[in-house]
Amino acid sequence: MRIPLDHYSQLPLYRQIECFLHEEIDSGALQTDTKLPSTRELANSLGVNRITVINAYAELEAKGLVYTKLGSGTYVAYPPESLPDRKDQETDEQRWPLWQQQLSHKAMLPGELEKERIGLVSEPSEDLIWLAGGQGAVDLFPADDFRKSLQSILLRDKTEAMGYGDDAGYLPLRATIAHILANQGIHAHPKDILITTGSQQALSLVANLLLRPGDVVLLESPTYSGAIDLFTSEGAQLVGVPVDENGMQVERIEALLRTYHPKLIYTIPTFHNPTGACMSGTRRRQLVALAKKYNAPILEDEFVGDLRYDGRAQPALKSLDCCGDVIYTGTFSKMLMPGIRVGYLLASGPVYERLRAWKHTTDLASSNLIQRALEAYISVGRYQTHLNRARRIYRRRRDAAIAALHKYMPDDVEWITPQGGLFIWLKLPDGVTDHNLYASAISHKVAFAPGSLFFPAEKSRQFLRLNFVMHPGEIIAEGIRRLSEAISNSLGIASS
Amino acid sequence: MRIPLDHYSQLPLYRQIECFLHEEIDSGALQTDTKLPSTRELANSLGVNRITVINAYAELEAKGLVYTKLGSGTYVAYPPESLPDRKDQETDEQRWPLWQQQLSHKAMLPGELEKERIGLVSEPSEDLIWLAGGQGAVDLFPADDFRKSLQSILLRDKTEAMGYGDDAGYLPLRATIAHILANQGIHAHPKDILITTGSQQALSLVANLLLRPGDVVLLESPTYSGAIDLFTSEGAQLVGVPVDENGMQVERIEALLRTYHPKLIYTIPTFHNPTGACMSGTRRRQLVALAKKYNAPILEDEFVGDLRYDGRAQPALKSLDCCGDVIYTGTFSKMLMPGIRVGYLLASGPVYERLRAWKHTTDLASSNLIQRALEAYISVGRYQTHLNRARRIYRRRRDAAIAALHKYMPDDVEWITPQGGLFIWLKLPDGVTDHNLYASAISHKVAFAPGSLFFPAEKSRQFLRLNFVMHPGEIIAEGIRRLSEAISNSLGIASS
Repeated sequence: MRIPLDHYSQLPLYRQIECFLHEEIDSGALQTDTKLPSTRELANSLGVNRITVINAYAELEAKGLVYTKLGSGTYVAYPPESLPDRKDQETDEQRWPLWQQQLSHKAMLPGELEKERIGLVSEPSEDLIWLAGGQGAVDLFPADDFRKSLQSILLRDKTEAMGYGDDAGYLPLRATIAHILANQGIHAHPKDILITTGSQQALSLVANLLLRPGDVVLLESPTYSGAIDLFTSEGAQLVGVPVDENGMQVERIEALLRTYHPKLIYTIPTFHNPTGACMSGTRRRQLVALAKKYNAPILEDEFVGDLRYDGRAQPALKSLDCCGDVIYTGTFSKMLMPGIRVGYLLASGPVYERLRAWKHTTDLASSNLIQRALEAYISVGRYQTHLNRARRIYRRRRDAAIAALHKYMPDDVEWITPQGGLFIWLKLPDGVTDHNLYASAISHKVAFAPGSLFFPAEKSRQFLRLNFVMHPGEIIAEGIRRLSEAISNSLGIASS
Repeated sequence: MRIPLDHYSQLPLYRQIECFLHEEIDSGALQTDTKLPSTRELANSLGVNRITVINAYAELEAKGLVYTKLGSGTYVAYPPESLPDRKDQETDEQRWPLWQQQLSHKAMLPGELEKERIGLVSEPSEDLIWLAGGQGAVDLFPADDFRKSLQSILLRDKTEAMGYGDDAGYLPLRATIAHILANQGIHAHPKDILITTGSQQALSLVANLLLRPGDVVLLESPTYSGAIDLFTSEGAQLVGVPVDENGMQVERIEALLRTYHPKLIYTIPTFHNPTGACMSGTRRRQLVALAKKYNAPILEDEFVGDLRYDGRAQPALKSLDCCGDVIYTGTFSKMLMPGIRVGYLLASGPVYERLRAWKHTTDLASSNLIQRALEAYISVGRYQTHLNRARRIYRRRRDAAIAALHKYMPDDVEWITPQGGLFIWLKLPDGVTDHNLYASAISHKVAFAPGSLFFPAEKSRQFLRLNFVMHPGEIIAEGIRRLSEAISNSLGIASS
């Protein structure tokens, strides 16, 4: 135990020890029946006379804070009520250091601000139907199969699975990902693949490496809120391109490329977040050609590229990229489970080595153990089986959601049926905004993701995003029914 | 399977499909005996006529690249020699996009440059004694116990362990860390603790949040090379403070604080990397007081705070911090295993929420599964047992290393016996530099970490760092014997 002692203090050493332990016990850090170090041990480690520690313990005992078991030692007696909350009342009064005060005056990220403004509910309560999330179906997580893979890896690799490992990622996993990508039409060499902590880290590495404050990023409007926060935190200026049912309106970007000379084009071409739109093949080809012409790298975010339920497959932008203009990122968070935190990026050319070095500098490497277990899981064919099953079930849930929308929604609510992915993007009737609707929806026991979270600049408040995969069809349908009631209520108020 | 097709190309569609698959087979992405999708399936997903796919397959079969099993399907026949290496010869010739060429002209991180200059060996070969590493003893990694914890957690929590979880980290783990910290004399509330991907990510978050290009960071010289690279990558200017056997020479810093107004003081007070020095209590108090006086936050990196073998415990700077001036970071990488990638930071005041938001933006969260398993591992007392055992064994290894230094080293080699941690810092005799010695040491089958890696600015080439915990005592002793031979050789050359 390391107790900070001040040998030049007015307060005697035994009192310093006593005060310190008193506070530890009060705060709950030392809990009831915890054994304190022996007086000899503590005296040694603090470099004080043993009698000093004996005196401190005696004071604590006199206050009833500790008790002594003969021949065994000294134990904490005090039953702390419960772990006290951080003393929030002090926060205002307490004079934090100036550097911290200055910090708190800095703008928060737009996502945080917006969530605060709306009063977003972050914890799903029991009877609330949660259609707000961004993840796959929890009931489909193959936790049991993954447990077996972990088990077999730890028996096979033992301590080897516990070292730092290759900072670019476990090579056999990178080879496995190259095979998965081949199936997506993407020629990838394992040495061009970098394992990351989810695809969020891939976005973050690219943003960090390529952007300087003031640089322009071209992106879909709306787009993934985590990307908006990320680019904003790098000080980038965001220029939005509208999205329709065929994805980003690429026809508009040549003018923007000429005007803004963006340092990055960020896009989610396949089952776009939040709209669910899939970019047409023509637009994909145009986009890659324009990026090349204007020397602007593309960051292609395929967070659910594998989750197609119907319609024709579109080539990844990366598969159309001849010369290293596209950085591609994928993740196992949606197709498998987010808790493993494994994503990856694919980049060819000098930028790869720079991203690898950046990854190393950021966190040395992602968990070696988890990467090995994932590789084992995929290579025994479990991944493909799981994916097929997820697609089947998700398609059914989408159909249930669309049927419920047709059945319950007021006439002037609009949506597009997505061919894959996780989301339906709903346009609200005039007079209803996502902000106003939110509280009403919560009181109707349903939660959605307010559309304004997803706009990089001029925010439209007329949209909301529904996740249709997280619950069985009948629950989603019930959620949509509740939502339609909330909308009708808001419409009533708006027209009254 | 997504094959990029161009409907407006001169090349017929069946030829586009054939070419694509040919390349996939050649590159090894599609391996021997892989089953191709059925013609119907592929035609559907590509939105082409089935006959188009049949023609493509027929062409491939005619070339001997695929074979057909009657009633079963089409399989890859070609036995690729081996996975071809990324075509490195093309790298120079190929015209990478301009944005990538500009990128590659940017300065690399100092650590990379230095490693390249020295020609650092990164992969330990079999007969090389590796004293260069920065980690704990692999033979002590409790892989088996951790496997049991993972197993029990996945049986207990199932899919719950596989969600994103709390972005600040699994709360029970944060509570457990608060208890560990209490034992270090640090009052910590779980809500002030943020789980990170190793302590490297904690450093990275703090650097990202607090530093702007041109800002000054005050740090020990020498110091951890990963921190030098990190601060440099943020564009910071590094000002070094010399280190002696009592740690950073804090007496010198008031003048530096006045001159440079640093935005951050980075320090490893306990068993410093690379010197092994432990900062004295007096200097610790001075440092905290000076930081407060000059409004400069301290980032305290206790990567091996728990690994003391003898001497008197010193209080963590964080335990001396009354008002939120110190951000503290610790890790389980050294005390336990790096492959789990769990570290943490402790910060009080408004800065905590900002760091949490930054963490969220960077990678959403660290692996929920691993955090839960670690909490289970610690709470059944395995961590403490493991730590006691590691301390006992490491102390013995240090003693073996020091004995070997006394026995083998030429007279004018100097070192300080560390009271804890992983490293011994060796001063070479005049005329021998770490660069020159390195190649010679490798030919003597021993590797060390060249001291020049650790200097933020004016590099001294007269030092090297030895890791004394990674091997049993007799191996370390043999490594030191080999090293002394290499030094004597270099001395002979220098004096001849």
